[in-house]
Amino acid sequence: MNIYDFLIPPAETARREGPNQRIVMSSRVRLARNVKSLAFPGWAKKPERIRSLDLIRPAVESLPEMVACFTEAMDNLSSLDKQILVERHLVSREHAAKGAGSGMVLNKDESLCVMINEEDHLRMQALRPGLQIREAWTAIDEVDTKLEKKLDYAFSPRLGYLTACPTNLGTGIRVSAMLHLPGLVLAEQINPIIQAVNKLGLAVRGLYGEGTEALGNVFQVSNQMTLGESEPEIVERLSKVVAQLIEHEENSRATLLEKKAKVVFNHIGRAYGILANAHSISSKECLNLLSLIKLGSDLGMFPDLERGMVDEMFIVTQPAHIQKDIAEKLDADQRDIVRADLLRDRLRSTKRPTMPPRDRTPEPGKG
Amino acid sequence: MNIYDFLIPPAETARREGPNQRIVMSSRVRLARNVKSLAFPGWAKKPERIRSLDLIRPAVESLPEMVACFTEAMDNLSSLDKQILVERHLVSREHAAKGAGSGMVLNKDESLCVMINEEDHLRMQALRPGLQIREAWTAIDEVDTKLEKKLDYAFSPRLGYLTACPTNLGTGIRVSAMLHLPGLVLAEQINPIIQAVNKLGLAVRGLYGEGTEALGNVFQVSNQMTLGESEPEIVERLSKVVAQLIEHEENSRATLLEKKAKVVFNHIGRAYGILANAHSISSKECLNLLSLIKLGSDLGMFPDLERGMVDEMFIVTQPAHIQKDIAEKLDADQRDIVRADLLRDRLRSTKRPTMPPRDRTPEPGKG
Repeated sequence: MNIYDFLIPPAETARREGPNQRIVMSSRVRLARNVKSLAFPGWAKKPERIRSLDLIRPAVESLPEMVACFTEAMDNLSSLDKQILVERHLVSREHAAKGAGSGMVLNKDESLCVMINEEDHLRMQALRPGLQIREAWTAIDEVDTKLEKKLDYAFSPRLGYLTACPTNLGTGIRVSAMLHLPGLVLAEQINPIIQAVNKLGLAVRGLYGEGTEALGNVFQVSNQMTLGESEPEIVERLSKVVAQLIEHEENSRATLLEKKAKVVFNHIGRAYGILANAHSISSKECLNLLSLIKLGSDLGMFPDLERGMVDEMFIVTQPAHIQKDIAEKLDADQRDIVRADLLRDRLRSTKRPTMPPRDRTPEPGKG
Repeated sequence: MNIYDFLIPPAETARREGPNQRIVMSSRVRLARNVKSLAFPGWAKKPERIRSLDLIRPAVESLPEMVACFTEAMDNLSSLDKQILVERHLVSREHAAKGAGSGMVLNKDESLCVMINEEDHLRMQALRPGLQIREAWTAIDEVDTKLEKKLDYAFSPRLGYLTACPTNLGTGIRVSAMLHLPGLVLAEQINPIIQAVNKLGLAVRGLYGEGTEALGNVFQVSNQMTLGESEPEIVERLSKVVAQLIEHEENSRATLLEKKAKVVFNHIGRAYGILANAHSISSKECLNLLSLIKLGSDLGMFPDLERGMVDEMFIVTQPAHIQKDIAEKLDADQRDIVRADLLRDRLRSTKRPTMPPRDRTPEPGKG
């Protein structure tokens, strides 16, 4: 099955609603689990990995949550399909690089995705639009409980769940939220904020996870520690920090509009002007400019542009998404041209940004 | 009299027609002359400079060409007025810095301007839109002949007209054309072309003359030598070189459209997008982007934008022109905002650029 036929169309994905969606693009909770008596994937030889995949995959597929799922061994996916999955944030870049002996199971509405034989035997994740960390936790906790009945997890009463890397040992939980923080970036407050968040034992990363740049002013905030705190404690702590970040971002935007409105409008106007008129644009520049369009849309500067359309552009302008409709293999320069054509077309009927009337400026906290 | 009330409105100036106007913005011939028995302006003390100004100015004012002229001592002009004159290319930056003992006489249609006590007693110049070097020469030659009957020029049968700086000695002539060469710049052929022109004994300078940058892809080409060649020979040689530069520029544009059309459209589209949507823009960025709009207009990408309107934007977005309508003194940041407001307003009704149909692309040589 072609992955693209299975996936929800970007326009539909982008229109999904969630709390505080203006700032929190998505919430995610993933659990790392391993099966007792099977070697960790990084240690196992290929035949052993294939055996463990064959043992684990049916257990995952048989979950009630996985009715009509997409299930596949990684070596049956083309590199383009894998990259599409990475761009949709459904599998990690590391997992996309895997071949025989690794697999994935994705449920129908893309709210649940289990990677098999990534770094651990099981990396199961629940995904939600907007700020829904608690909801994502509840969902993945249920899946975990059901799977624990089918599979014999590697568990130590003293250490908790055993994992390939000690950074995941214990709860094996990684709770994260993807935040759009252009206000903090424009106000040059993002670095102190990141440092403060780090001091709370939380990590701040770029758009595609560990070691990636914060393109498009999008930041992933997640817990670092998996030992010494219960899952609900971690979920609560991250939820609180994210709530504070939302407030900081809203305050930054309000202050910018009050004190540096021209600077903000200048950035947003230029971003729109370039996106609507360029004939070549790189993925990186595109993300950074779309971020400003999203901010402008939040501020009411694009009355005829719905939020979903901006978020859709974030998805469909990524390299694999650009490539997928085109038979011949494009190089980066060619993709930049197709991307610009797509953006000009999408923005054809979007009028030039107008300065928001003061009373239309959304209030802080109104997500 | 307020200089701005005398000057032809920018919209009208910009709409003047001349041969090869798409590439040759203007032609100019200036002559340096000095009056025997008066010390050169740089050597003379202030009272002596005032005396020589009082002697020379009436002679210039009484020329039939100077009916209803603007005539003024430089110390009676505000610094803003002087800067306006520099931005219109009517007086040199050096002359604008002069005070008591220097003056200027400008005729009604701005085709003739005489600076008194710049570096020499007389710097008289004839200006024409488009490629009209010969016409400018004929005009200034007539003025010179008439003035020579009124003033006793410093002249040596062996050396020719004596001048303050030996680089002007002999004919005292400086013939120049202001060329818009975005094609050669985009094709990265401008540097070899400049070197070749230099080897012919001609100078290539930026928008505001000696020592200035080639902002907006505008280059001034002029003769360097004033000895050993007659005025008509210099005029002919420069005319020929300019004709060749026009051809090179047309060829560059044709080749770019054939081989790198997307690159050209990308530059022009982005320039339009930024100019039409920025809320702050520096003078330098503005000139460079307007140059691309002018190129796009030449290529037929802005069917609803007349050439004159682009050239007008070149004039009215300069710093003193931005300042002149505003009572309070603006700093550079404030001017950048006013400039952006002006540009957004001017481009409000200009549609996004469209790729030119192949058959609408102007042919080389069709100026």
